[in-house]
Amino acid sequence: MLKKEDKIAIIGLGYVGLPLAKSFSKYYNVIGYDIDIKRVNDLKKNIDRNIDVDLKDTKIVYTINEKDLKDSNIYIITVPTPVSNENIPDLNCLENATRMVAKYLNKGDIIIYESTVYPGVTEEICVPLIEKNSSLKYNVDFFCGYSPERISPGDKNRHLSNIVKITSGSTPEIASKIDTLYKKIIIAGTYKATSIKVAEASKVVENVQRDVNIALMNEFAIMFDKMKISSSDIFSAAKTKWNFINFSPGLVGGHCIGVDPYYLSFQSMKFGFTPELLLKSREINNSIPKYIALKVMQFINEKKLIKEEAKVLILGYTFKENCADIRNTKVEQIKIELETYSVNVFTYDPYVKLPYTNLEIDPFINNEKYDIIILAVSHNEFRNYTIKDFNRISKEKLVLLDIKGLYKFSTWTL
Amino acid sequence: MLKKEDKIAIIGLGYVGLPLAKSFSKYYNVIGYDIDIKRVNDLKKNIDRNIDVDLKDTKIVYTINEKDLKDSNIYIITVPTPVSNENIPDLNCLENATRMVAKYLNKGDIIIYESTVYPGVTEEICVPLIEKNSSLKYNVDFFCGYSPERISPGDKNRHLSNIVKITSGSTPEIASKIDTLYKKIIIAGTYKATSIKVAEASKVVENVQRDVNIALMNEFAIMFDKMKISSSDIFSAAKTKWNFINFSPGLVGGHCIGVDPYYLSFQSMKFGFTPELLLKSREINNSIPKYIALKVMQFINEKKLIKEEAKVLILGYTFKENCADIRNTKVEQIKIELETYSVNVFTYDPYVKLPYTNLEIDPFINNEKYDIIILAVSHNEFRNYTIKDFNRISKEKLVLLDIKGLYKFSTWTL
Repeated sequence: MLKKEDKIAIIGLGYVGLPLAKSFSKYYNVIGYDIDIKRVNDLKKNIDRNIDVDLKDTKIVYTINEKDLKDSNIYIITVPTPVSNENIPDLNCLENATRMVAKYLNKGDIIIYESTVYPGVTEEICVPLIEKNSSLKYNVDFFCGYSPERISPGDKNRHLSNIVKITSGSTPEIASKIDTLYKKIIIAGTYKATSIKVAEASKVVENVQRDVNIALMNEFAIMFDKMKISSSDIFSAAKTKWNFINFSPGLVGGHCIGVDPYYLSFQSMKFGFTPELLLKSREINNSIPKYIALKVMQFINEKKLIKEEAKVLILGYTFKENCADIRNTKVEQIKIELETYSVNVFTYDPYVKLPYTNLEIDPFINNEKYDIIILAVSHNEFRNYTIKDFNRISKEKLVLLDIKGLYKFSTWTL
Repeated sequence: MLKKEDKIAIIGLGYVGLPLAKSFSKYYNVIGYDIDIKRVNDLKKNIDRNIDVDLKDTKIVYTINEKDLKDSNIYIITVPTPVSNENIPDLNCLENATRMVAKYLNKGDIIIYESTVYPGVTEEICVPLIEKNSSLKYNVDFFCGYSPERISPGDKNRHLSNIVKITSGSTPEIASKIDTLYKKIIIAGTYKATSIKVAEASKVVENVQRDVNIALMNEFAIMFDKMKISSSDIFSAAKTKWNFINFSPGLVGGHCIGVDPYYLSFQSMKFGFTPELLLKSREINNSIPKYIALKVMQFINEKKLIKEEAKVLILGYTFKENCADIRNTKVEQIKIELETYSVNVFTYDPYVKLPYTNLEIDPFINNEKYDIIILAVSHNEFRNYTIKDFNRISKEKLVLLDIKGLYKFSTWTL
């Protein structure tokens, strides 16, 4: 079983790795490694610019020096797994982290992955890499595990410790050992999956389900827009059924839901099966920024504005409400689309700090007036704006395109 | 407002109309009309062969004589709205019922529809028909409403009275009047939709959402089958996340989920928008019987059986668990598919009574032995079968294809 002297190395100190390092550091020696020297220097001063993890009284040793890893016996890899511009899984960070850890691996050590992947990555891609770079043998000299991260950015009530965590390991004994490890820090409890592949798949499955459900709401929204029936009225009515699932139409960005489905479809197609529902959903969700931009142009035409002179304000720039995370935000694409029509686009997001200075000017304090206003992200800060507030910053008659169906007085809702 | 002397006529006494007639008959004079003379004769003897509605002490006047409708002032239409073989909405029953009611309509009367339709049917199809056949003027001489049925067949805990009911009406006053009418019988409360079209759309939207979610589980199941990873293990793991939506792969039949999406897509395409996610989901769900049949043939090949001699037992024949409803059941298609391969197919469903006598022979009492057993519907009666039970009715080694993932000892799960 686990020993007090177990030494855990966390590779990658982002949204996933840092809270994990903090939790484990209460019980174990924890070393936190990242390649980003600025990030590591910040963390050494107990500053987390991502999500303000409180690092006071933690005993994590931060390093950018890979040699510092050599005394660890449990390695947890939490590096990003993005997609390329062609939506192909980009496993470079994962492979680099794996090769690096392999160099310092000793007999009996365990490598656990938390990065979202497709089923098979740990055993078919990482394990051979480890064997090659360590000269150790899998399930004899070293072991692996997979425990998908379930961090929910912007969710004030759900933290690492109160979300059930799935665990798995390369042998039944190692699976139990890994499960015990996580049980120590997860109050909500753990769930031991039947295999590493099952644990890998369970994570992508969740994200695909979310993506497909939002895509369906987007398909409904476009459909009812054509029929000139208010989709938000329809959803409000449907919601009164006990088993209706409460999703909203909108933009799907971020590092998970807009990305992970491509991991699963990539692997599926290697097995000769094209997941058409998954890919169709991606297509629909990717089309929304363009749909919004076209809608804006329609209003510009209806108002008989000269498009080069039209001023459009976008409220919200992050990929999700109530957080500062702008990774893969689709609001940017609305902006880009509109700018190709030579429209003047202004953006405001109270969460987004430097170096995005142009996002920081609060239009309700500023004296600017806009032709069209788009509510793109439903931050709590935006919820209390009244029609009076909007009229004040609106040129002539208010045109408010409300992507999230946040206001009763919207001109148009997705 | 409603008066004690209001007389309600229910047109169509099926799964929807009969419970409605029963509920309203506690407070109002209710006349129940159906074109099926056998059904009406049964009901006159207080016998309901559908879902065993307890009709003792009810004061419904049953009739097949349309002239008996002439004294009613509120008409509720609950006739079937199926699709044709080409999946085109078949509004014949609805149109016939509408024409019939129009003939007996008096000034001030209200016609309420409960049949599932697409947004627009009440106002664009029914209202002109009523005006033509009654010489009365819409919203001057007569009024309309729409209140979608939410009956859940086989659900022992959810009845008409404890499911929130959506109401709507052709004027604000009539909407309130209809809402008050339903409030009387719906303990769970009512929800007044903003328009008839919104109420119509809300119902199809719910069913499409369910269809798409099951289609996604089916897509996952086929995908992981190809990857040789247990999808039921994956779903069990994913389910431990708070927001994972617990759907299962399987057959989608019945009079609602397998049908209603075609209503919405039909109307959407008239507006020039093809709902591709909806249609792709239908395609996937429709492909499942064939997929199961091919899987059976694969096992027959692997077991080196002569297909003409192979005996396959299918457990469950209804469209849904724990009910006798076989409308649009997809189990039939598995049977038909297998029979095209000349395989001998036996079926058993404890819920299905005459005239489906071949379904009544309990294989666990009978002495037959089967090569392959398929669990198609997860009736409660099947849940307690043990591996011993299955071994007893199995030739040689048990091959159990478990579509619903009901057993731990299944050979294969969808």
